[in-house]
Amino acid sequence: MMRSAHFYITYLLCVSLGILSVIFVLYWSFRWRGGFAWDGSTHQFNWHPVFMVTGLVVLYGNAVVLYRIPLTWGQNKQSCKLLHGGLLFLAMLLAILGLCAVFDFHNSNHIPNLYSLHSWLGISTVTLFTAQWMLGLSAFVLPCSPMAFRRLLKPVHICMGSMVFVLSITSCLTGINEKLIFISEGKTNATQRYSALPPESVFGNTLGVLIVAFGLVVLNILSTQKWQRPEPRCDETTRLLSPEDI
Amino acid sequence: MMRSAHFYITYLLCVSLGILSVIFVLYWSFRWRGGFAWDGSTHQFNWHPVFMVTGLVVLYGNAVVLYRIPLTWGQNKQSCKLLHGGLLFLAMLLAILGLCAVFDFHNSNHIPNLYSLHSWLGISTVTLFTAQWMLGLSAFVLPCSPMAFRRLLKPVHICMGSMVFVLSITSCLTGINEKLIFISEGKTNATQRYSALPPESVFGNTLGVLIVAFGLVVLNILSTQKWQRPEPRCDETTRLLSPEDI
Repeated sequence: MMRSAHFYITYLLCVSLGILSVIFVLYWSFRWRGGFAWDGSTHQFNWHPVFMVTGLVVLYGNAVVLYRIPLTWGQNKQSCKLLHGGLLFLAMLLAILGLCAVFDFHNSNHIPNLYSLHSWLGISTVTLFTAQWMLGLSAFVLPCSPMAFRRLLKPVHICMGSMVFVLSITSCLTGINEKLIFISEGKTNATQRYSALPPESVFGNTLGVLIVAFGLVVLNILSTQKWQRPEPRCDETTRLLSPEDI
Repeated sequence: MMRSAHFYITYLLCVSLGILSVIFVLYWSFRWRGGFAWDGSTHQFNWHPVFMVTGLVVLYGNAVVLYRIPLTWGQNKQSCKLLHGGLLFLAMLLAILGLCAVFDFHNSNHIPNLYSLHSWLGISTVTLFTAQWMLGLSAFVLPCSPMAFRRLLKPVHICMGSMVFVLSITSCLTGINEKLIFISEGKTNATQRYSALPPESVFGNTLGVLIVAFGLVVLNILSTQKWQRPEPRCDETTRLLSPEDI
C-alpha cells in the first residue's frame, strides 16, 4: 500500500512535469516566437521544439514508465504492450515531423543541416529510436516472433529504451541552449541579449530545468526495482509462458 | 565466468571512453584554444572544460561503477568505500576549480555569470554533488553514524548519485555546444564558422559524442542488476551486519 502511494506520488510528479514542459514550449513559441506556420519561415521552425519536447521527451517518457503503473498489472499484458507501442509510435511520428520542420526551414533559408553537436545528438536519437521501435514491434508484438528471440531481446530493448531517453533529454537541452544563443545574436539592444537574462531567456532556461527534472523522475521510476512489474514465473508447477507475457 | 567477461568488456569500454574524453578535451585546448594560464584570459577559461570533463564526468563515472568490479568484491568494503569517496573528492575538487576558472575569467572580462541554461545546469550539478558527497561521508564513512540512518540513506544516495551523473553529462554537452557557437561568433571567415564544420568544430562535436557514449556505458553498468555487488545477508543464522557493510 505504502509502495503504491510512493509510486503514485512520483508518477503524479512525472505527469505534471511533462504537461508543464509541453505548456512551456507552446507558450514560448506563441508569446515570443510569433506562433506557427508551415511556410519555410521561423514560424515553421517553431514546430521543431514543440514536436521534439512533446514526442521525444514527454510522450516517450510516459510510454516507458507505463509498465510500472500498478493499475495495469491486473490487465492483459498485450493491451499494455499495444498502449506502450502506440504512444511510442505517436512520439516517433512527432519526432519525424519535428525533423521535417527544421530541415525544411534550414533548406528554405540556406542554413546548413546537421553541423552542431545538438543536431548530431538529435539525429542519433531519432535514428536509434526508430530502429528500437521497429525491432520492438517485430520482436514483441508480431505473433510469429519466436520465444527465444523475445527472451534474448528483452533486456537489450529495456536498456536501449533508457539510452534513447537520455539522448532525447541531452538533445532537447542542447537545442534550447543553442536557440537562446541564436536569438540573442540577432538583438542589438544589450538588455535583450541572453547574458542580461530578459524574460524570454529566463522562460527558456526554466523550460530546460523542467525537462531535466522530468527526465530525472522518469529515470528514477525506471531504476527503482520495487516498482517493476511482477513477471509471471515459469516453472513446472505453473503454466507455460505465452508470447504475450514477454 | 561469462558474466564477468561481459562486465570486463563493458568496463574496458567505459575506461577507454573516459581516457579518450580527457585526451580530446586537453588536445582541443592545446591545438585550437592556445593552452593554459591563470591570468583572467581565455587561456584561464580553458581549464574549465578540462576540469569539468575530467572531474564531473570521467572521475565521477569511474567512482560510481567501482562497486560493480568483481575484483573488489573479495576486499573489505571499507577500502572500497574510501576509494569511492576519495575519487569523488578529487572529482569535486576539480569541479570547484573548474568553477573558479570560469567565474574568474568572466569577472576579469566583465561577462555576466550564470545566465545560460548550461550554467544553470552546471551550478545545480556541482551544488547537488557537493551536498551528496558530504552526506555520503557523514552517513557511510564516519563510524558514529547509526545503522538505521545508513539503511535509510543508502537507496537515496544511489539514486541521487545517478541523477548527479546525468546532470553532469547534460552540463558538459550544453557547454561544448555553447562554446563552439561562441567561437564561431568571433570568426569573420565563413569557412571557419561552426555551420561550415571546420576541423575544430568536428573535433568538439566528437568530444561531445565521446562524453555521451561514456555516460551511456556508465548508466548501463549501473542499471544491470546481475553486475551489482552481492550484499551480505543479515539473518539469524549468519553474522550481524557491521557499519562497514552498508
